[in-house]
Amino acid sequence: MQAPAKGRVLLSVAGFDPQHWRDMLSAGREVVLERERPVDSSIHYAVVWNRHPGLLSGLPNLKAIFSGGAGVDHLFADPELPDVPIVRVVADNLTQHMSEYVVWRVLDHHRQGFLYRAQQRRKAWIEPPQPPADRVSVGIMGLGELGRAAARALLALGFRVNGWSRSGTPADGVTAYGGGEGLDAFLAATDILVVLLPLTPATKGIIDHALLSKLRRDNPLGGAVLINAGRGLLHNGADILRALDDGVLKEASLDVFETEPLPETSRLWTHERVFVTPHAAAASDPVHLAKSMLEQMDARDRGEPLRNLVDRKAGY
Amino acid sequence: MQAPAKGRVLLSVAGFDPQHWRDMLSAGREVVLERERPVDSSIHYAVVWNRHPGLLSGLPNLKAIFSGGAGVDHLFADPELPDVPIVRVVADNLTQHMSEYVVWRVLDHHRQGFLYRAQQRRKAWIEPPQPPADRVSVGIMGLGELGRAAARALLALGFRVNGWSRSGTPADGVTAYGGGEGLDAFLAATDILVVLLPLTPATKGIIDHALLSKLRRDNPLGGAVLINAGRGLLHNGADILRALDDGVLKEASLDVFETEPLPETSRLWTHERVFVTPHAAAASDPVHLAKSMLEQMDARDRGEPLRNLVDRKAGY
Ligand SMILES: NC(=O)c1ccc[n+]([C@@H]2O[C@H](COP(=O)([O-])OP(=O)(O)OC[C@H]3O[C@@H](n4cnc5c(N)ncnc54)[C@H](OP(=O)(O)O)[C@@H]3O)[C@@H](O)[C@H]2O)c1
Ligand SMILES: NC(=O)c1ccc[n+]([C@@H]2O[C@H](COP(=O)([O-])OP(=O)(O)OC[C@H]3O[C@@H](n4cnc5c(N)ncnc54)[C@H](OP(=O)(O)O)[C@@H]3O)[C@@H](O)[C@H]2O)c1
Repeated sequence: MQAPAKGRVLLSVAGFDPQHWRDMLSAGREVVLERERPVDSSIHYAVVWNRHPGLLSGLPNLKAIFSGGAGVDHLFADPELPDVPIVRVVADNLTQHMSEYVVWRVLDHHRQGFLYRAQQRRKAWIEPPQPPADRVSVGIMGLGELGRAAARALLALGFRVNGWSRSGTPADGVTAYGGGEGLDAFLAATDILVVLLPLTPATKGIIDHALLSKLRRDNPLGGAVLINAGRGLLHNGADILRALDDGVLKEASLDVFETEPLPETSRLWTHERVFVTPHAAAASDPVHLAKSMLEQMDARDRGEPLRNLVDRKAGY
Repeated sequence: MQAPAKGRVLLSVAGFDPQHWRDMLSAGREVVLERERPVDSSIHYAVVWNRHPGLLSGLPNLKAIFSGGAGVDHLFADPELPDVPIVRVVADNLTQHMSEYVVWRVLDHHRQGFLYRAQQRRKAWIEPPQPPADRVSVGIMGLGELGRAAARALLALGFRVNGWSRSGTPADGVTAYGGGEGLDAFLAATDILVVLLPLTPATKGIIDHALLSKLRRDNPLGGAVLINAGRGLLHNGADILRALDDGVLKEASLDVFETEPLPETSRLWTHERVFVTPHAAAASDPVHLAKSMLEQMDARDRGEPLRNLVDRKAGY
């Protein structure tokens, strides 16, 4: 007797080529890139990234949705999102990659990369005062998987680290602040602000001129710095430009934008104190992720619990 | 009865203002900036940086020479250097600062800072392949105080680390190579070369085109990278430019140069794949150092041994 066929996987991603993902997932299950019928009972799991609303309705046997990348805001944009468990991306190599990005950007601001590159253009041999890391406070908004790992890497280099989260959950070596009531104190103690929040109704647009104005003014780097690697819709780009121009911000590194790709007309591209990367801080690696998704699908079929589930009420 | 007066300290530095040093050292001893007599028996210690030959002869009671900055090559340039112990700079905050510099430069090459800055200038939203840190080998030449600390910081970020030293002394997590016979294997296993050697007759000019040609060619970053924060005379600037132009090197970060300040005519200033800093990787901090020098002088007066002594034969 043949083993019963495993439920099929719907793979539907926008913004990148699904080929590599399909190859990886096909090692374990039959993968379909398109639904063939309005109601399709053969599909038990979905791996989804940035698709249109309604995509997942009409799948009576859907057992779980896997986000094809970090962040689940793209799923909650679907008013017809089926009421099944949602698994988010947690992967060591993605976390590692994000820590590299955060340490790279923090050090480039701390060690005055912008100034040195400008000096090099005019062949100026000038050594500015250089505060040591232990005089600089990095404040991380969002102290989850990624924020905690970034905090560890920064602490190892000697930086002071503050963290802000919904719960205010403590983390080793980090001065933790929680919720709306902790926000102002967190900002007032922060020289370099690193944003690693998820995008939810509660966090949308949180990084505006008013918030940036609350960062520590008497800053050993000569001005506050913003690094956003969370989501573009967490910030207001026009406010960031205003803050750079009126002295509220010294410099910014932005990996994410309200509209991606960043439109050619945006002044963020050309501002001399902004560093732009194309949402590349920490890409999801299909080789690594597809394997763990297939393991979770099999575990679920055996009746075991899924890991890294999204809290639908909190939205992340 | 009065306590006997402590021997005086000759403070003689070139290239920076001695005022701050004088203030700090004066907390413990009488400090003189100039010798008043050809033979001066009142001077028991000297704090020296980059001064002319013969400065220290005619001091019959000189008990020790303290280098005013990291690196003692400036002292050995003096053929009349008195035969007294030489104390080099070892200071936690300097070591920490150098680790920041090394991690900053390694990450800027690893995370493709040069490429992203060029893309930003033409508003190009392109994500290049990004190898994870654990596929990249950083090779550190000189695994002393500074090299070992940099290795630890890089290991914490997930890089593979090779080290090369005279002795080949092992260090945790580092693949260690020693001496002339270990050099080629070290280079062949290295993608990003970090130079933290002292300048001695044995290391002068070691970084030339032939050496750079031996770095790993099949490199996940698309080409070998050089970072020199040791001394400028360890390298040959013309060879670095040739290596950049003929594809042996992809990029370089240089903090030190054969002539400092780097002359305006040097093409290192303008090469688009070279990043220049003005010998600023890790400045000596007089507040911290003067205190430890005064402690060592008092200890020596009590007959206790000096720490961090230079091996005159090895030259570092
Ligand atoms: N740029 C890129 O390439 C890239 C790559 C990967 C991920 N990301 C982004 O990074 C985000 C974070 O990922 P993660 O894995 O670290 O998420 P996570 O583990 O879910 O952590 C989220 C953190 O944000 C906090 N938070 C959520 N809502 C909040 C609110 N309203 N107020 C204050 N704090 C709030 C949470 O607080 P609690 O601790 O109290 O729950 C938690 O500390 C993702 O959602 C994604 O948008 C970007
Ligand atoms: N750019 C800046 O701002 C800055 C700041 C501070 C220091 N520096 C430079 O950094 C250098 C290193 O400082 P450190 O405190 O780490 O020195 P250190 O503790 O004396 O270590 C020197 C290292 O170099 C190795 N070495 C010496 N001669 C060698 C040779 N001929 N072949 C192979 N290896 C050799 C030694 O090998 P063993 O382990 O076998 O002895 C040791 O590992 C200083 O000399 C200075 O020039 C630059």
